[in-house]
Amino acid sequence: MAVYTEVNDDDLSAFIAGYGVGELLSYKGIAEGVENTNYMVHTTQGTFILTLYEKRVAREDLPYFLGLMEHLVSKGIPCPLPVKAADGRMLGELAGRAAALITFLEGFWTRRPRAEHCAQVGAALAQLHLAGSDYQRTRANALGPQGWRPLFDRFSARGDEIAPGLAALIDRELECLTADWPTGLPSGVIHADLFPDNVFFVGETLSGLIDFYFACNDLLAYDLAICLNAWCFEQDHQFNVTKSRALIKAYESVRPLNGDERAAMPMLARGAAMRFLLTRSYDWLNTPAGAIVKPHDPIAYLRRVRFHQGVGSIKTYCGEID
Amino acid sequence: MAVYTEVNDDDLSAFIAGYGVGELLSYKGIAEGVENTNYMVHTTQGTFILTLYEKRVAREDLPYFLGLMEHLVSKGIPCPLPVKAADGRMLGELAGRAAALITFLEGFWTRRPRAEHCAQVGAALAQLHLAGSDYQRTRANALGPQGWRPLFDRFSARGDEIAPGLAALIDRELECLTADWPTGLPSGVIHADLFPDNVFFVGETLSGLIDFYFACNDLLAYDLAICLNAWCFEQDHQFNVTKSRALIKAYESVRPLNGDERAAMPMLARGAAMRFLLTRSYDWLNTPAGAIVKPHDPIAYLRRVRFHQGVGSIKTYCGEID
Repeated sequence: MAVYTEVNDDDLSAFIAGYGVGELLSYKGIAEGVENTNYMVHTTQGTFILTLYEKRVAREDLPYFLGLMEHLVSKGIPCPLPVKAADGRMLGELAGRAAALITFLEGFWTRRPRAEHCAQVGAALAQLHLAGSDYQRTRANALGPQGWRPLFDRFSARGDEIAPGLAALIDRELECLTADWPTGLPSGVIHADLFPDNVFFVGETLSGLIDFYFACNDLLAYDLAICLNAWCFEQDHQFNVTKSRALIKAYESVRPLNGDERAAMPMLARGAAMRFLLTRSYDWLNTPAGAIVKPHDPIAYLRRVRFHQGVGSIKTYCGEID
Repeated sequence: MAVYTEVNDDDLSAFIAGYGVGELLSYKGIAEGVENTNYMVHTTQGTFILTLYEKRVAREDLPYFLGLMEHLVSKGIPCPLPVKAADGRMLGELAGRAAALITFLEGFWTRRPRAEHCAQVGAALAQLHLAGSDYQRTRANALGPQGWRPLFDRFSARGDEIAPGLAALIDRELECLTADWPTGLPSGVIHADLFPDNVFFVGETLSGLIDFYFACNDLLAYDLAICLNAWCFEQDHQFNVTKSRALIKAYESVRPLNGDERAAMPMLARGAAMRFLLTRSYDWLNTPAGAIVKPHDPIAYLRRVRFHQGVGSIKTYCGEID
């Protein structure tokens, strides 16, 4: 949530001129996105987001992300469209950073999601999974199961600074996840970070999905499990089955889960909670005091891991009698 | 340059509903303004800036600032217009802060001003002075000559941490300024902070004046002296007479200076440089390491004070033979 890189008006005017989107009218650094610098840009032809990619995003991954957005828009998914420069490229260079100009989507993320929001997210996620099925590029999930143990190793000695016993809990849970992680489930393009701040609504209607910079190829049902963690727990960490049922039912109305996916859902939910527990714990321990971007509290995801450990079947998430 | 206060979507939607500007479409926190939190807001009827006034702006001054913008717009000055709520008020309350919704001005500030920019600023400043002449409210200049010594007293013991001898230099200079500060010059509404980042251009044409939160009643020629400091020195602190001549000539093409104002210009310029040397020195010494907003370097204004001390007449600023 910060403007890491300043852009001067002469450089931006020259950059914009390469895109055939009219003359620059205004630009404002916006407090959005944790990894990159974003500007909202008005030209005589419309509103755009200019993204400058900071070092945490690997430059070699950018064609995957930008190409994916273009692919999804072509399939009718409401996500930002990278504008092509006159020479056909989507990726440029500005202020010493890789840079892209993308279309602006109206809408704002909902701070207090209700079941109706969750239902729309579920349907949109399934549509995204279907739309991604013929996307040609691939990208491994750097934060998938193979990445969890190495990430844990980077902070395990300090894990108990976050909560007593945390390191031992993560260690045991990683053993379980490694042993029982499902194989053979349908895989494809997943968003991998579809939290409330990455879904826009206008009024009550979903208007956009943004921030594809964790997108990758992995199990489709794992993406649903991420949303289950991100959308279906209250501020006090209580699981909300009404939201969860709405999310899953709407997902299945577009893309029904198969039997293996349904059976794996508790394990996938544990893994999804673990993935965010790990990254939040690492960031919590490694963010300097006074940093511009405040780290998220890992404890919310410790609570989720424990919740999912006690779930025996997808019926719990669907509010069905087990 | 920060978003100090987060606004949630439900609260903002309710706030916007009071203004008759249509439905909320999107809002983004923008990295603009040092004192306050600003959001760029799109509604079905247009683009607006939402300002949340943080503690450094005195609430009792807000009617002066907002009323002034409204007055200036009515006189044709290109500045933001506070939108009136259905009940006629310009000032509301949101997220525990005083808040105003103002019209959005296209344009961007020029990082590398040239003489043509300075000329437009000079003319716009004079137009602002004329337009303000019948504004009814008044506000004393808290950062005028009477405020300088008390501000210096707050950091004088640490002044030499910035530069050896700085405290003694300021002390002597304040003596001079107090003894020789002009009286009887034309006074009225001044902007008091018309730096390059508060003047918007579209292409080469001035499109807006913003940030009236230092505006007050004081000597009109002092406002020109502030611009002379803000616009007519290079990055290496060298005075640029081409820019200065352009600024003053354009100002005088709209509002000619009288003989007393011309005679006082070197002293006014010294005072203007001192005012920013003082506030920047104070901020430099009192901004915590790692703060979101980085303080400006005071040394640039120490250099300006010294330059103006050697100026005998306005002819130096106008590039005329003395």
